[in-house]
Amino acid sequence: MPTNTAAPNILISAAGEDADWKKALVERLPDANIVTGDDNYDSATIDFALFWKQPQGLIKNLTNLKAIFSLGAGVDHVVSSPSLPKNIPVIRLEDAGMADQMVQYHLYAALHFMRDFDVYSAQQAKANWTQHDVARISKCRVGVMGLGALGAAVATALSNLGFGVSGWSRSMKAIEGITTFAGEDAFDEFLGEADILICLLPRTPETEGLLNSETLSHLPKGAAIINAARGAMINEADLLRAIDTGHLRGAFLDVAVTEPLPESHPFWDHPKIRITPHIAAATRVEESADQIAQNIDRMARGETPTGLVDRQSGY
Amino acid sequence: MPTNTAAPNILISAAGEDADWKKALVERLPDANIVTGDDNYDSATIDFALFWKQPQGLIKNLTNLKAIFSLGAGVDHVVSSPSLPKNIPVIRLEDAGMADQMVQYHLYAALHFMRDFDVYSAQQAKANWTQHDVARISKCRVGVMGLGALGAAVATALSNLGFGVSGWSRSMKAIEGITTFAGEDAFDEFLGEADILICLLPRTPETEGLLNSETLSHLPKGAAIINAARGAMINEADLLRAIDTGHLRGAFLDVAVTEPLPESHPFWDHPKIRITPHIAAATRVEESADQIAQNIDRMARGETPTGLVDRQSGY
Repeated sequence: MPTNTAAPNILISAAGEDADWKKALVERLPDANIVTGDDNYDSATIDFALFWKQPQGLIKNLTNLKAIFSLGAGVDHVVSSPSLPKNIPVIRLEDAGMADQMVQYHLYAALHFMRDFDVYSAQQAKANWTQHDVARISKCRVGVMGLGALGAAVATALSNLGFGVSGWSRSMKAIEGITTFAGEDAFDEFLGEADILICLLPRTPETEGLLNSETLSHLPKGAAIINAARGAMINEADLLRAIDTGHLRGAFLDVAVTEPLPESHPFWDHPKIRITPHIAAATRVEESADQIAQNIDRMARGETPTGLVDRQSGY
Repeated sequence: MPTNTAAPNILISAAGEDADWKKALVERLPDANIVTGDDNYDSATIDFALFWKQPQGLIKNLTNLKAIFSLGAGVDHVVSSPSLPKNIPVIRLEDAGMADQMVQYHLYAALHFMRDFDVYSAQQAKANWTQHDVARISKCRVGVMGLGALGAAVATALSNLGFGVSGWSRSMKAIEGITTFAGEDAFDEFLGEADILICLLPRTPETEGLLNSETLSHLPKGAAIINAARGAMINEADLLRAIDTGHLRGAFLDVAVTEPLPESHPFWDHPKIRITPHIAAATRVEESADQIAQNIDRMARGETPTGLVDRQSGY
């Protein structure tokens, strides 16, 4: 029996938020059959899966799957599944309300260092009123690793505020007002000019442990790190060492290798580390559901969806 | 002997920074005679005084003064001098590099509350990884008191980032994207819609103690205060009470009634107050000297200088 593309069967598995996603999808695709893990459904009839931290093994019964939608900015948790067939398209969210949130987070974190709020916070704890010269924002060089939808939005916002911004990505990108670098050969040069290093790369086998003792040593003395992407991209022991030896000024982190961060983790009470619980950019159900519904319509018309993940590069 | 306007006599008294100001002025006005308190000079020949925290009584010997330039954004320390003749023009700095710094400070302080960085900072101290929903920035209403060069720049920057911004000033102002209120009659209504209240008013007899138990009670429950203008505008005991009773969420302060803040002051270790040592916006010598030199040239040509203070309103 041919699948009816006008009435697709959609399975949602969204880590406790199934009901919100179902409601948003039903509003946008009234003809679709939309089920969650709590419903009775025939795995073999599912056309599209919407996944965020889905149960292990769920994919392998979905024998007629046409595409998987990731409900977060990263797709690492989807594409790393060993039961994922190589030929199934994986589609990521593009922006979907997350770029604005990432801009807010990074404006705050970059100003935290540039305007010495880290220093003044430590001074407040000692009732110390010492004033420091206000740096010129144009002299503060921010390096943004990763120039996708989120990285480009953050780089542009920081540049508009007056920071000197450069960007680094796997392949060369052109963004107005941003000095761009590309590829492994340019990485050390890029790092050497980053007073504040922002990590907005996707998590792939290539980016795991990318920031380690060797690469961190190429940053200028006194540089600061902001990571709101994935914890695995930084070797945490190396980061702590670089801060404790005084090479780095500090770090502003939204992610960690193990989340929730274990109570005994040294990040919690380190005076030069600020940590937030992976809240830099939350998926916005409304905007994301718009994007997913439009992509399902595109595929029903035989068109290519937007946000298709390159399974080779992993993002 | 008539004063030679082509070679004005200029006295600088700038609280320990005389040399920097003198150098910058000499570069811009090579024909002027520029002296500081360390030099021998005839008080009766001084045409222009550049003042920042000048010694008491210095003004009264300057019998031929044509104008006083304040070297800070506020002129309260100049116009409050009892020996200041009523007919001497007082000229303030307009922006002069301070607007950008104020924008940076207020972006950070507003995001501090809007993105729950105050909550997450407290959670970090307890190794607590609890996530909270990310608020929609358009639902966070910021009220900016004072719409001069600095207030208008801050209001516009926050509006551009997505905050819902309103402004209040003595006389009605029109700023694109900002809902504006004017005068005493509209004050309570303005306060009632401010989730974050920013104070960028000049210090005058009318603004002293403007924020007190009565006015703070008109803010919505859970509102936050940012004050980087002058400490005297807030009744500090009333502010502490409004925070401690839970009416206000907290405060982000760059100023206090007594500066440096005394070691025993309750602001230092209050968990809901962030305090910085009056560093939100430093006078930039280069930009300010440009502005002052241009105004001295204007007066030499018989034109009206810009930034003239209305001695009646005090700013």
